[in-house]
Amino acid sequence: SLSTSSSEDDTLVKGKEIYMVSDGSGRTAEHSVTAALGQFEHYLIDGGCPVYTRLFSGINDLDRLLEIVIQAAKEDAILIYTLADENLADSARRACKSWGVQSTDVLRPITDAIASYLGISPSGLPRGAPGRRFPLTDEYFRRIDAIEFTIKQDDGAFLQNLHKADIVVAGVSRSGKSPLSIYLAQKGFKVANVPIVKGVDLPKTLFEVDQKKVFALTLNPVILQTIRLERAKGLGYHDDEGSDYAEMVHVREELDYANKIFAKNPTWPVIEVTGKAIEEIAAIILRVYQDRMHGSSVPLISKLY
Amino acid sequence: SLSTSSSEDDTLVKGKEIYMVSDGSGRTAEHSVTAALGQFEHYLIDGGCPVYTRLFSGINDLDRLLEIVIQAAKEDAILIYTLADENLADSARRACKSWGVQSTDVLRPITDAIASYLGISPSGLPRGAPGRRFPLTDEYFRRIDAIEFTIKQDDGAFLQNLHKADIVVAGVSRSGKSPLSIYLAQKGFKVANVPIVKGVDLPKTLFEVDQKKVFALTLNPVILQTIRLERAKGLGYHDDEGSDYAEMVHVREELDYANKIFAKNPTWPVIEVTGKAIEEIAAIILRVYQDRMHGSSVPLISKLY
Ligand SMILES: Nc1ncnc2c1ncn2[C@@H]1O[C@H](COP(=O)(O)O)[C@@H](O)[C@H]1O
Ligand SMILES: Nc1ncnc2c1ncn2[C@@H]1O[C@H](COP(=O)(O)O)[C@@H](O)[C@H]1O
Ligand SMILES: [Mg+2]
Ligand SMILES: [Mg+2]
Repeated sequence: SLSTSSSEDDTLVKGKEIYMVSDGSGRTAEHSVTAALGQFEHYLIDGGCPVYTRLFSGINDLDRLLEIVIQAAKEDAILIYTLADENLADSARRACKSWGVQSTDVLRPITDAIASYLGISPSGLPRGAPGRRFPLTDEYFRRIDAIEFTIKQDDGAFLQNLHKADIVVAGVSRSGKSPLSIYLAQKGFKVANVPIVKGVDLPKTLFEVDQKKVFALTLNPVILQTIRLERAKGLGYHDDEGSDYAEMVHVREELDYANKIFAKNPTWPVIEVTGKAIEEIAAIILRVYQDRMHGSSVPLISKLY
Repeated sequence: SLSTSSSEDDTLVKGKEIYMVSDGSGRTAEHSVTAALGQFEHYLIDGGCPVYTRLFSGINDLDRLLEIVIQAAKEDAILIYTLADENLADSARRACKSWGVQSTDVLRPITDAIASYLGISPSGLPRGAPGRRFPLTDEYFRRIDAIEFTIKQDDGAFLQNLHKADIVVAGVSRSGKSPLSIYLAQKGFKVANVPIVKGVDLPKTLFEVDQKKVFALTLNPVILQTIRLERAKGLGYHDDEGSDYAEMVHVREELDYANKIFAKNPTWPVIEVTGKAIEEIAAIILRVYQDRMHGSSVPLISKLY
């Protein structure tokens, strides 16, 4: 379950704190900070002092902002922010300076660059500002449809719909098909995933659909076993109970079985997912997909605004 | 389906182009650019010239980088990048300068701030670098479990599991329950969503689970009708066919029915979702959730690294 430690909690090891402040959802600040923290893994993993993040979303008035800056000062935190209103952003910068809090504006540099490129001024309105509306574009409907399709098609369900999918993902249990499919769905792709189980024939439809849209996942047997053991624990199995699902011999045999199928279907790109985050795997798939469907290694226009 | 227009396509209206370049998945650059573009909606919607984005992911060598810069110069594009390797990032900056391409480094300012805060140097290694591995943390397993749970519980399925959910979302058809649930799942929350259908009693279990974790969605009837009409089109219905699903009278009655239920269950926060993006709705829910579960309006530590 989620961490419930608060800074008031005595048991909390005093660590470094990164405050993320947004007048919106905080997603942009969160992703930027997560990416940047990737650059300090050597420190974070090898037991430097712990680093915590705190997300303050929906911050659109000066009082609340100043409270946060003052708290950051008390806790010796750093503050990363995205604030659309230039006055509020300037206040954040100045308040941080006078309270001795190190701060970085994530939004302004890109906004300024785009403003000068387009030759127009930013609105200064945060996304939640009164009167502003998230528009119901075709893109919006496409994404909703993709998410609903992908949920329905999870784990080999409704195989008669496989031809409606933009992308089909095949792999053994615990190779990460579901989270990958969902991630791609949020980008607007209808994804179906099909499990590969040793000794069970793959559905005929998988070989009947456009083979250029099928992608295979493989991973390291030792890592797969680790993931399956964790899964078995979650399901409440004990070592001596249940199937041979997480037995090393079985894991290897199942991966061999999958790899033989992949070898017989050389059109399917085989993606080694070990040690890769979902968004990295998705990026690889989309590069190949684009190349295959449009014969172009230069990215097509990903979006028209 | 996806836009297949390329810049070689004669039918494409010449527009402004934003190139996004990453040695990783490109997610950080994409989200930052999307947020920044929100500041130019007045221009984008009111028929300024069209703005396109192109995502170049997995760019980790100088040759490929230079190709992209040169192409950006030809197309009069702007270039937004995240490159972990300082040399490559410097090359990007210099190449853009000498080719007259406006550019912004999204990663470096935050990385520099964190480096000086922690007092250590960034690794300079992109996430896909050889030897680097995405670690299988508890957080990772928690997310996977949350995604699988949430997929299974979509649309009122397996109501006997409602007590296992961290968050339960209730609302009428097309109020956006599924995409919202999936988004929260990716943040590690087990979410179940329960549809409200006029004339159909809500499941008993919904009233038996911890009421502090139930959230209600409502929206503007006119917008809901628009969404339902789009849905009906997608399902191939014609005006005179099918149910009264998208009829204005029915839409209003169903929302009234839902709102009466909400009034009888005052513990459930009612979230007006009209015109809000999924991540904004999620941010509102998580603020209330945190407050309710931990009695704190100061965000708890969202993550320990
Ligand atoms: N559609 C939008 N319109 C205006 N501003 C936006 C939009 N989307 C995001 N932003 C701004 O971009 C920053 C990051 O948003 P968020 O990722 O929701 O925290 C915030 O300052 C938002 O106000
Ligand atoms: N775990 C990580 N370790 C090292 N660098 C990372 C990590 N995650 C993201 N990055 C870097 O952050 C930038 C944005 O990543 P992405 O969002 O995948 O494009 C890229 O330059 C990545 O190399
Ligand atoms: Mg699965
Ligand atoms: Mg739904």
